Amino acid sequence: MTEHFTICFLPAGLRGEVPRGTPLREAASALGLEIESLCGGRASCCRCRVRVLEAEEAAEHGTQSSGAHVSPLCDAELRARTSGRLGIQERFSCQARIEGELVVFVPEDSRVGRPIVRKRAGERACALAPAVHKYFVELVPASVGEPRGDWDRLHDELCTRFGLDVALTVDPVALRSLAEALRTERGRLTVTVWQGREVIRFEPGFRERALGLAIDLGTTTLGALLCDLDSGEVVSQSSAHNPQIRWGADIMNRIASTKPPGQLAAMQRAVAEAIGELARDATLAVGARPEDVVEVVVVANTVMHHILLGLDVHSLGVVPFCPTISRSLDVKARELGIPVLPSANVHLLPIEAGFVGADNVAAVLAAAPHESDTLTLLIDIGTNGELVLGNRHRLLSASCPTGPALEGANIRFGMRAARGAIEKVRVDPATHEVRFRTIGLPRWSDRLQPGEISARGLCGSAVLEAVAELFRAGLIDSTGRLYSERPCRRLRQNVDGMWEFVIAWAEQTAIGEDITLTQADVRAIQLAKAALYAGSRLLLDRFGAERPDRVVLAGAFGSVIDLERALAIGLFPDCGLGNVTAIGNAAGDGARMALLNVAVREEAGSLARRIEYLELSTARGFNDAFVAATQLPHAEDRFPSTETGWAPRAATD
Amino acid sequence: MTEHFTICFLPAGLRGEVPRGTPLREAASALGLEIESLCGGRASCCRCRVRVLEAEEAAEHGTQSSGAHVSPLCDAELRARTSGRLGIQERFSCQARIEGELVVFVPEDSRVGRPIVRKRAGERACALAPAVHKYFVELVPASVGEPRGDWDRLHDELCTRFGLDVALTVDPVALRSLAEALRTERGRLTVTVWQGREVIRFEPGFRERALGLAIDLGTTTLGALLCDLDSGEVVSQSSAHNPQIRWGADIMNRIASTKPPGQLAAMQRAVAEAIGELARDATLAVGARPEDVVEVVVVANTVMHHILLGLDVHSLGVVPFCPTISRSLDVKARELGIPVLPSANVHLLPIEAGFVGADNVAAVLAAAPHESDTLTLLIDIGTNGELVLGNRHRLLSASCPTGPALEGANIRFGMRAARGAIEKVRVDPATHEVRFRTIGLPRWSDRLQPGEISARGLCGSAVLEAVAELFRAGLIDSTGRLYSERPCRRLRQNVDGMWEFVIAWAEQTAIGEDITLTQADVRAIQLAKAALYAGSRLLLDRFGAERPDRVVLAGAFGSVIDLERALAIGLFPDCGLGNVTAIGNAAGDGARMALLNVAVREEAGSLARRIEYLELSTARGFNDAFVAATQLPHAEDRFPSTETGWAPRAATD
Repeated sequence: MTEHFTICFLPAGLRGEVPRGTPLREAASALGLEIESLCGGRASCCRCRVRVLEAEEAAEHGTQSSGAHVSPLCDAELRARTSGRLGIQERFSCQARIEGELVVFVPEDSRVGRPIVRKRAGERACALAPAVHKYFVELVPASVGEPRGDWDRLHDELCTRFGLDVALTVDPVALRSLAEALRTERGRLTVTVWQGREVIRFEPGFRERALGLAIDLGTTTLGALLCDLDSGEVVSQSSAHNPQIRWGADIMNRIASTKPPGQLAAMQRAVAEAIGELARDATLAVGARPEDVVEVVVVANTVMHHILLGLDVHSLGVVPFCPTISRSLDVKARELGIPVLPSANVHLLPIEAGFVGADNVAAVLAAAPHESDTLTLLIDIGTNGELVLGNRHRLLSASCPTGPALEGANIRFGMRAARGAIEKVRVDPATHEVRFRTIGLPRWSDRLQPGEISARGLCGSAVLEAVAELFRAGLIDSTGRLYSERPCRRLRQNVDGMWEFVIAWAEQTAIGEDITLTQADVRAIQLAKAALYAGSRLLLDRFGAERPDRVVLAGAFGSVIDLERALAIGLFPDCGLGNVTAIGNAAGDGARMALLNVAVREEAGSLARRIEYLELSTARGFNDAFVAATQLPHAEDRFPSTETGWAPRAATD
Repeated sequence: MTEHFTICFLPAGLRGEVPRGTPLREAASALGLEIESLCGGRASCCRCRVRVLEAEEAAEHGTQSSGAHVSPLCDAELRARTSGRLGIQERFSCQARIEGELVVFVPEDSRVGRPIVRKRAGERACALAPAVHKYFVELVPASVGEPRGDWDRLHDELCTRFGLDVALTVDPVALRSLAEALRTERGRLTVTVWQGREVIRFEPGFRERALGLAIDLGTTTLGALLCDLDSGEVVSQSSAHNPQIRWGADIMNRIASTKPPGQLAAMQRAVAEAIGELARDATLAVGARPEDVVEVVVVANTVMHHILLGLDVHSLGVVPFCPTISRSLDVKARELGIPVLPSANVHLLPIEAGFVGADNVAAVLAAAPHESDTLTLLIDIGTNGELVLGNRHRLLSASCPTGPALEGANIRFGMRAARGAIEKVRVDPATHEVRFRTIGLPRWSDRLQPGEISARGLCGSAVLEAVAELFRAGLIDSTGRLYSERPCRRLRQNVDGMWEFVIAWAEQTAIGEDITLTQADVRAIQLAKAALYAGSRLLLDRFGAERPDRVVLAGAFGSVIDLERALAIGLFPDCGLGNVTAIGNAAGDGARMALLNVAVREEAGSLARRIEYLELSTARGFNDAFVAATQLPHAEDRFPSTETGWAPRAATD
């Protein structure tokens, strides 16, 4: 009978009896701890390194151990140690064999499925289990007695050595590079496999790096997170405007623009190329090439999703807003014209329903209301306001027709959140004087000379703050009317006879005219907040709850608005300021999670099916709630008493 | 307990007890007889028609029956009968229910997996089981309460109604036409499914027709058979020269031509476009469009196969002639740039080894040596001569370097088998006078005025016949030397001093000069026949057999050569003239079979693995056998005594 020895793996503390001669990696696997390997145990990839603890260290853990309890270094380990790739106590766990009792430390980098380090609060941790894996192979060359083709021999090697399923296929475009990859390093090559079932890349020699791209495709902007699929880290980011803006700023205009022949294809190409630009920028930043991107995950609203796939969007413009496909989908990058690895797959997360798209599913993944008993109201403010209300037991969703006001569009002096945009506004309730802050400048306007400011317009958060401040100052009444009981030099009628309030005087601007907030702008904000509030109210009613336990704001807008002032004008149901958090680009985070873990894709599919969608435009009671919510709440009732908003602040504020 | 009745299905004679109320189609299925249906039992497709036999007819079969033993006509059947689509005794077997004992006749057209009618002797019959099936669906429209996308609802309908696997996917390009297909006939649409696992086409309304294309891609020519996938019939044919000829006439030249950058892609495009032209011509002939071709099967030699896939072919030019891939492969038509239905799959049959390609596998499928105890030598003569020797127990193959002489290439006045080519030659042993026949003319040259003939050159079969005839006439000796003991006005030295024999005088030609057979031409034929003969000999030795039981000649050349004269010069081992048959374009036939029956594809894969490949260039003994076989056999010994070749024939001969 074979002799058995006790082996203990740290830091997990796994312990068990293993027969003499078992390789450490195999022993770990038998105890339920998987150690990485790209080369399938051929001592080539350096990925299965472990530290065999010396006797004195082992003794501390209550086990006797020494160098003699493990097989001597093999040639490959000796070479790796000489070249410095293998540390002094380190061993290849595929080579080192058990010859006695041992304590082995397995570094995190060598473990399969290790958790990704959280980057910041609010970011949900997920284990690393990407769709794409690399395998290092040394293929026996063809010979006269072996008539099978290169792929056929490689296929069998992959199945035998790495346990891949015999149904493993090869992408026909990737196949074109096999012959050259084999020639370059005499049969040594790295094979990239997607979902364990399709080979998508052949590279000569040993190539460890695999990059993935998570794309948040919005109506106005595109964001990309470039991830190292091996570490789970975001290695670079890039963003750009959606080039489809030239076909219309909002969803309905985009839908209308697809009608003339060829336009849909042109819009598809534009966005595919824009994603390609993001891939180029993001890879360039880390010294890689777009071809190194081996998988892309895209989240988008339904219309952007359909246009990217080249699908007809007409039905998305009319009740019941039915998409052509709602489940998730994998499409080759080359089919979509996205210039990354041509054989890379683009995974599109599922759509919930109509206007509630994959971006919302991704935001739910990131905010994870379904993992808690807390009743969460998730608000994702983009060109539409998408709501999800629920907990682990039930999830409801709705899409609110907020219009683009909260993004600074359709506002007299509105603009996107870019350099020169006013982003914060304060109005003195006594003097009606104004101070503001501009993106790109470190100080408030009252600490700068007028000529130093060069404001260009109002971004969404400034419009919202201005309405809240004017309401508190008594310059807007609860119906939303701009008026003043006493003279106010900033309140006036413009050439069209419309009332407006001056935020920035001409000399403080780069546009040579006063930047104002008009009566129409106030109305636009009222409609937007009424839509969000009424939508939230209806979801709460449907859920049978009075108020949410917490509110989570997703999206860029949610990150920059002043939560107190948002509550002050009743943008969403009040649940106490302490229970409101902004989680930033949750859709992008959800895309990243789906990129790094295939189980998250399953979760997305199950969420998309589970979330009950409430169509507001036809829901009983929505219109009444909407009309009621256009009223601004009473100032004293809501306004936070802790902050007057007017005390001079530090220059860095 | 439910009442049961005896039902009998003709012509199969299946009989069983079935509960009252069972639809006829279901009853047939329970007895093991599958009846067609595209609509899944919705009385829409007219495909499940059966004839319910009247009482008197039923009585003849010993069973009592009448109209009352079956449920009354439903509305859809009444409409179909009024419009003439349903005959007087016919019923939809999905609608008609059993109410008493019945005899039902199931026409062949309504049966699943019915055998294809053989067209001619030598053509192997195979059951009809194509990879592509159509399903007719009436999809419930989207509604506010049903947030799933069109595809999601359709997917579930296909799985529920037709039992398709839930893993059913949709081609992303096909998906683009779903919305329009649904709109056009208010949810009534026909869905084309490939291999039960991927939807490749959406058509509005009920569309029955499905076409497939079988392509034989040769070095010099391309042949296409357009098949109706519903009947199994070849509905039209087309052929063309391989446009890659401008990159070299033979395989080795083609390989060399791929080296400069961009050339491989250009050659790939050229052949993909040529296949597109064939698809256009063949579909036009039956009033269809190339987009109606829903699957393509291609057989080709290894180099043509690789170039079509855009694969590197360098390794195919050097020992061990290893292909990049040898197993079968499915690639989207659009990936290859073949202008048929973009989502159609192109199935490439497997390669055996090196130069023995999928065309040879297809020829084996058609000739089926593996289904018999008879030892068959299959010779497929193209630019290479490919041999398969074997029976149901063992199969050996080899590729003989015949050179292109048998195709009329590298011959002084050689040309392809086209209008104006001399295809048959007779030489009078006594007078040394010549008569010949030209492609396109109904009479021999001695029955025509010289000016009526307009010969342009010699095709391969004429070159072979000329050598055989000159050998018999004593104008070629057994070493292949052209000479004459007595004066012969047709035998002369040309300007280069080379001996040549005049086949056609200048006035009989369209080229203004004498068409001759030169000494070099004779040598080329000797080398070709020596390669074939020595290859066959080696395979026989390896098999342990003295001679084959039968010889089957495949390929265009095999169909036009005179078998007696081929035997006379020793083109292949003699097994008696009665045991030699030509089966024409066997590769094309094999492709057609694989198109019509997915099981044949499995068979091809198993054949490709089973056939043992013998590499002649490195095989011991091949060179000696080759040198010995360059000798022409003794005339009296071999020449058939029954036919002198000189007696005047009927004008239509």
